[in-house]
Amino acid sequence: MAADTRERFIAATAKLLLFRGYYGTSLGDIIDASAAPRGSLYFHFPGGKDELVLEATRAGAAQATQALSDALAHAPHPAAGVRAYAEAAARLMRESDYTFGCPLAPVVLDGEGPPALAELCRATFAGWTGILRNAFAKAGMSGKRAGALATIVVTTIEGALLMARSYREAGPLQTAAAELERLVAAGLPSNPQRRRRRAARTAPPTPR
Amino acid sequence: MAADTRERFIAATAKLLLFRGYYGTSLGDIIDASAAPRGSLYFHFPGGKDELVLEATRAGAAQATQALSDALAHAPHPAAGVRAYAEAAARLMRESDYTFGCPLAPVVLDGEGPPALAELCRATFAGWTGILRNAFAKAGMSGKRAGALATIVVTTIEGALLMARSYREAGPLQTAAAELERLVAAGLPSNPQRRRRRAARTAPPTPR
Repeated sequence: MAADTRERFIAATAKLLLFRGYYGTSLGDIIDASAAPRGSLYFHFPGGKDELVLEATRAGAAQATQALSDALAHAPHPAAGVRAYAEAAARLMRESDYTFGCPLAPVVLDGEGPPALAELCRATFAGWTGILRNAFAKAGMSGKRAGALATIVVTTIEGALLMARSYREAGPLQTAAAELERLVAAGLPSNPQRRRRRAARTAPPTPR
Repeated sequence: MAADTRERFIAATAKLLLFRGYYGTSLGDIIDASAAPRGSLYFHFPGGKDELVLEATRAGAAQATQALSDALAHAPHPAAGVRAYAEAAARLMRESDYTFGCPLAPVVLDGEGPPALAELCRATFAGWTGILRNAFAKAGMSGKRAGALATIVVTTIEGALLMARSYREAGPLQTAAAELERLVAAGLPSNPQRRRRRAARTAPPTPR
């Protein structure tokens, strides 16, 4: 069950980081929360707290990256994909009783952590922005516009996660979902929202 | 110099919070950073750390609120005001060597702090949103649209602060400034950007 113990340490660390940040999370807290013996922590993570925090942040980042890629892959167009991603975040926020959050935010804010952690955060932000930019560009948006909108999607969802957590309600994420969908759709060469409205207007009359 | 000592404690706490969050900031850290005797901390803040954190967050929140109100009051229209506010944040980010940040973010993320602190964060987010919503509505935007755009402005700047800090460059805040100006301008009944472009196009020919 070694893999299980390892996963348990990572999950406990990820959860503590979301509540207490890098500096507020101690090895003692992690051991208590994962209900595993101290010796096994050093067996799995010889680098101690810094290694664990890095692995927990990496796991959280990878999960978010996968969710973003999936949302874009399963949507009919990137504007709908962005909306689906933000709505999934709203759902997770509600289901977690408003404890859900970006895995990067707490370690970015605790700005003096180990350099590898800072590098992981930068690379993850750049990764999310790149996935969105590519999806927008593939749908025909100009490169410059795609880059700017990708940044706006990432920053808006990031801020909405924080505000929703503070308010203990998903409203800010719902607002972000609707507004970002509209914004991305407006930037696509063949605006899918407009197309839908036009299609509705010019639908052939139902036979009498 | 009692007021000075008090201010020094608050400034030191605000700075530590931005780096280490609520849990990562200890009374010992605050005393070290403010170079003041421990006794005087309890003289000024009988409630200890929780009182100090509350006062430091309140001071930071009040400063940001004032800056937002000023930016909107001094701009020719609210779209330009939003841009000016985001650009000021970009400047502060650069001038602080990328340590500047929202005073609410670290305490929102350290989610188990005292209830008065959580209440202060909620009220401050609501205050910022309200100031923006009123400015947009006063410029003729519909109430519903003004509310949604106010939320987007707050969340986007919040997320851009985080991303800029992670990247150690102001780019995300500059992108937010330009995109938010465009977005707010597009929502105003007499789009000021369009008006400016139209004015340039229809300028009377220079006399030959």
